[in-house]
Amino acid sequence: MAKNRICELLGIEKPIFQGGMAWIADANLAAAVSEAGALGIISAMNADETYVAEQIDRIRTLTDRPFGVNVMLMSPHAEQVAKIVAEKKVPVVTTGAGSPGKYMSLWREAGIQVIPVIASVAMAKSAARAGAAAVIAEGQESGGHIGELTTMALVPQVCDAVDIPVLAAGGIADGRGMAAAFLLGAEGVQMGTAYLVAKECGVHPVYKEMVLRAGDIGTVVTGRRFQASSCRCLKNAFSRNFQRIEYDPATTAEDVATLGNGALRRAAVEGDRENGCFLAGQISGLVREERTAREITDDVYNDCLQRLRGASECL
Amino acid sequence: MAKNRICELLGIEKPIFQGGMAWIADANLAAAVSEAGALGIISAMNADETYVAEQIDRIRTLTDRPFGVNVMLMSPHAEQVAKIVAEKKVPVVTTGAGSPGKYMSLWREAGIQVIPVIASVAMAKSAARAGAAAVIAEGQESGGHIGELTTMALVPQVCDAVDIPVLAAGGIADGRGMAAAFLLGAEGVQMGTAYLVAKECGVHPVYKEMVLRAGDIGTVVTGRRFQASSCRCLKNAFSRNFQRIEYDPATTAEDVATLGNGALRRAAVEGDRENGCFLAGQISGLVREERTAREITDDVYNDCLQRLRGASECL
Repeated sequence: MAKNRICELLGIEKPIFQGGMAWIADANLAAAVSEAGALGIISAMNADETYVAEQIDRIRTLTDRPFGVNVMLMSPHAEQVAKIVAEKKVPVVTTGAGSPGKYMSLWREAGIQVIPVIASVAMAKSAARAGAAAVIAEGQESGGHIGELTTMALVPQVCDAVDIPVLAAGGIADGRGMAAAFLLGAEGVQMGTAYLVAKECGVHPVYKEMVLRAGDIGTVVTGRRFQASSCRCLKNAFSRNFQRIEYDPATTAEDVATLGNGALRRAAVEGDRENGCFLAGQISGLVREERTAREITDDVYNDCLQRLRGASECL
Repeated sequence: MAKNRICELLGIEKPIFQGGMAWIADANLAAAVSEAGALGIISAMNADETYVAEQIDRIRTLTDRPFGVNVMLMSPHAEQVAKIVAEKKVPVVTTGAGSPGKYMSLWREAGIQVIPVIASVAMAKSAARAGAAAVIAEGQESGGHIGELTTMALVPQVCDAVDIPVLAAGGIADGRGMAAAFLLGAEGVQMGTAYLVAKECGVHPVYKEMVLRAGDIGTVVTGRRFQASSCRCLKNAFSRNFQRIEYDPATTAEDVATLGNGALRRAAVEGDRENGCFLAGQISGLVREERTAREITDDVYNDCLQRLRGASECL
């Protein structure tokens, strides 16, 4: 097997990240993924530094393997969370919702590998210049907050633009997707929706059930009218209501900004089918059973390896 | 080399289709692509049967190889065009903007291989049931009228749903994209934007220049507010104006329906940078030089082959 730059850099066996999903990706899920040889990631979401510190301490009781923390840069607690991850010297920080430039020297001095999620060539170049160890090129088929480019279009253009390793995210839930991402030039992948249904994931059972039942056209993007807030979620009463209000002539960007308040919690913690916002990717239709994080990881990785080895037979 | 079902079915050397782009894909471009061993496709767009008959007669003076005609099912001339392609026994018909069920028996009796462009699992299943020889699973990174699913999410889900061969379209302009599509399960690809800049393509030079200059975020989708008319084009004064009107509170679906009238012609024939609608895919950023159809085809195909052969070294 050739050496993989992501595995070498982070000391992991399989170049697969578990996405840092807000209200979903806690120390339990992340530990299970890291134990499976991939990289588990704790979501710092909008939580304060106390919660994040507890989660970091907890994952260290569960695994000796490398893990990451996803820092949401728009969080009101971003500054304090940035400090705590440096203080705790977490192995990897992934970032979303902005540029991590402000915290880069703090994190790098703490020995952290910083790997921003990016949605365009310009963001990738900026991250590389700022000292990122790699970038996660995330297509808009992903669940949650998204950009405009798709994985298929984004990954090769980002690979052409930067020399650091590129991980692909968005639309990947099996060995086919991972193998395709590698052919596009990626050296690793990140999967969110696929890990959401892991047995070790403590999300409300209704959330898992909704992902498992979703078909190919089961998701929708809310917030597109007001660009910056595009968000992919499962179709339900919440999403229909959001879209109705979004496209109402009288609605302003400010109205829309508050529409989602509390909706992630209602989905992930309460399992409220009607009023929850169930973030999930377009690949939900391929996610069909609840399995352990190890089963998910091994299956994707081994199938990918087999497909790459047999690829010369494709054509 | 393994046998490829698309090549066997159609008698072509390389399982690559040139997209049937309205106002762009005429007999000259299609003949050049077919001569290169791929499948050239004439766009019937909204033209009448006289134009389509002329184009079919013309391509037969230019090449003995198989070619296709793309029938736009919403065209006011669809019925007459459907008859003329049957009468002229064209080898392949691809269809867009609807279900080809109505014309399926007419076409199949004429010996035509019918290959619909589809954007969801349900459309793929329906096409297979109706007797389609294959389907083109087109992701929303494509230029022109698009669905919601991306290539990465759509292709594996369609491959799981139907037994007929699947071609991938959307986000493919080089050997990486083609190889990735094959790993997703596709047995062929369709490229539009990549062929738009072919030397043999008679589109206005300004159109080619705009595609060659476009970066990764150079396209935008107009018509999303009123679902059925989502259309990906290059960002320019036309697209900005369209979006301004589209999101104006007073605008209705009817207002938007007529906004694009004449705009494709203004782009493709007149090269009107301001008022033309320049349909193009998100992969425009990878399309960097004008080359012959043979150079484009050979480069994509040979690079794909090489990548598939070397895929076991990826991981």
